[in-house]
Amino acid sequence: MSDDGSWPLLEADLLPLSIGAALLGTGGGGNPYVGMLRSRELLRKGATVRVLPLDALSDDALIGEVGGIGAPVVGVEKIEEGAECFRAMRAVEEVLGIRMAALISAEIGGANSMEPVITAAQAGLPVIDGDGMGRAFPEVQMTTFFIYGAKPSPAAIADDKGNVVVFRHVQDMYWLERFARDTSVAMGAAAGLAIAPMRMDFVRRTAVPGTVTQALTIGRAVLDARAKRQNVVERVCAATGATLFFTGKITDIHRELKGGFSRGEARIVGLGDWQGSEARIAIQNENLVLWVDGQAVIMVPDLIINLDLETGEPITTEILRYGQRVAVIGLPVHDLMKTPEAMAVVGPQAFGYPELTFAPLAFGPISA
Amino acid sequence: MSDDGSWPLLEADLLPLSIGAALLGTGGGGNPYVGMLRSRELLRKGATVRVLPLDALSDDALIGEVGGIGAPVVGVEKIEEGAECFRAMRAVEEVLGIRMAALISAEIGGANSMEPVITAAQAGLPVIDGDGMGRAFPEVQMTTFFIYGAKPSPAAIADDKGNVVVFRHVQDMYWLERFARDTSVAMGAAAGLAIAPMRMDFVRRTAVPGTVTQALTIGRAVLDARAKRQNVVERVCAATGATLFFTGKITDIHRELKGGFSRGEARIVGLGDWQGSEARIAIQNENLVLWVDGQAVIMVPDLIINLDLETGEPITTEILRYGQRVAVIGLPVHDLMKTPEAMAVVGPQAFGYPELTFAPLAFGPISA
Repeated sequence: MSDDGSWPLLEADLLPLSIGAALLGTGGGGNPYVGMLRSRELLRKGATVRVLPLDALSDDALIGEVGGIGAPVVGVEKIEEGAECFRAMRAVEEVLGIRMAALISAEIGGANSMEPVITAAQAGLPVIDGDGMGRAFPEVQMTTFFIYGAKPSPAAIADDKGNVVVFRHVQDMYWLERFARDTSVAMGAAAGLAIAPMRMDFVRRTAVPGTVTQALTIGRAVLDARAKRQNVVERVCAATGATLFFTGKITDIHRELKGGFSRGEARIVGLGDWQGSEARIAIQNENLVLWVDGQAVIMVPDLIINLDLETGEPITTEILRYGQRVAVIGLPVHDLMKTPEAMAVVGPQAFGYPELTFAPLAFGPISA
Repeated sequence: MSDDGSWPLLEADLLPLSIGAALLGTGGGGNPYVGMLRSRELLRKGATVRVLPLDALSDDALIGEVGGIGAPVVGVEKIEEGAECFRAMRAVEEVLGIRMAALISAEIGGANSMEPVITAAQAGLPVIDGDGMGRAFPEVQMTTFFIYGAKPSPAAIADDKGNVVVFRHVQDMYWLERFARDTSVAMGAAAGLAIAPMRMDFVRRTAVPGTVTQALTIGRAVLDARAKRQNVVERVCAATGATLFFTGKITDIHRELKGGFSRGEARIVGLGDWQGSEARIAIQNENLVLWVDGQAVIMVPDLIINLDLETGEPITTEILRYGQRVAVIGLPVHDLMKTPEAMAVVGPQAFGYPELTFAPLAFGPISA
């Protein structure tokens, strides 16, 4: 660590970072594995990516937010060419005649944990230790940045074929989501998005802090538990403050690709302490709501994470299948995601559950 | 007319221009009536729009091509706010740091005859006497400009809400069509598109020449025939060199809005000289192919125009209905649309009729 609290991201950090990020993906966000390999390749070729704490940089430094956009179920098959976010960021810079001073992730959960690292390595920039969600969410406007007033334009989207589309003026973040989603679908449902630069003082106030470090810590705990043959689910709960909410076997799962999203639902019959109970999880790329015996017990924006009951591997919504044995853990989201402003964008009502009123999780174990 | 052969578009020109343009719309292109009213309003407020022949302006003058994009069936109900093309053109200018010297229509057929006039009045620019189709076509790439190598980017699209999307780099004209179409659908299927500036020497070589004048001439002939209670269909054929191919009554019409297009087919049973015959017209916004008794007799890119048998009013595909009595006339398209390069983009095969080989119409009457 240097005087400003920054530290270089090492090759050895990439695997635990990707594991922790996959877990924070709450079933979505796409698999960070390919991005991890690409980051590793760039670091091996000599690129350096420093991670800056939120108190680094001057107030007027311009921060770029980049991330992949598309349906995770497509991302599994259609691998990004690797410079999509870079080209999108350059297009935003070019339109405004500015240069970014650092990058930050739109979402630490899933593949978008790696996109800013890849772009930073390509552009010679540092990344900020934080992100706009503290998890994964399915839509562009669902970041703390947009919730607290980041400008929706100019933003840009780029694909693997050299196509670059700039959203020069968009009315609001919902129109950005709409245009970016439709364009990403035209691009084959996998593209890189860069949004308008944000001032560092704004990012300091609005980013979910320390989430690169958090993902790394979780990933290291998982790897350590595996090496020591400990119960991974228990270690993850201990490392994160998460609570075990259900264990069971998937009995039914349906998903469809609709409007660029994976939507669906999974049913789980209880095992162990939950024998005789039934759980249900609603999905829109990510896990949205967990019901146990008909009662909603965890709901967005809190994190619902499915882990393989034996290995502790996070199970993403696109690989959920009949017969899987899962542990469902719940993790409270950051307070920035629980304000009335945030509820309007990422609360249960925003996801189409008017009957649910957000009941926040508390940290610490509860009885089963 | 001044020394350079240019002439001012007068208020009295607007109605005949819109009538001729509607006829050249070959069933599509949208109704130019609202655009005519908007142009009139602008001229009445003091705007001046000069029409320049293709030999005006220096070789390096930059020409902007603008036009509305969307499904005509939507355009009937969703009226453009009026500055969509203007804002799209400004976005292209801004991205490149240039200014247009004049505007040209993407398609003289239908509503897009008026869009460059409106934008020219708003921007204080002249318009060129020519266009990129000599008719109407459903897709962005179907202009002589793109067929002969115009750059597909940067282009820009704007809606009535202030949203502006710039297609900064697109691989080719088909990708531009794809992105612009999807964005126009997101914008409510009615938006203004401006493409990259073209040099005047390129436009001179590639534009379908004199089509503003042609539309005016047709419109004046229609108005004159109406005033003199002459047979409008005959006057139109005489004024344009078109041939009457069928007269009959619509017995079946189906249309659907699909991917931003109106697609469908109309069936017509013969009347008069065509008693006992049956015709069929395929539609994708415009009339694509006319079959008479199972034989394809006119096909894209030649013009298939339905006129009301009694009034001579052009009948657009969105107002075709059961029981209408129509005269179907055919008009040869300009030679620039009949080259092998053009066939690849606007020939019957490009429209999904692999079984058809383009057989060009000849000018002059044929026997029924």
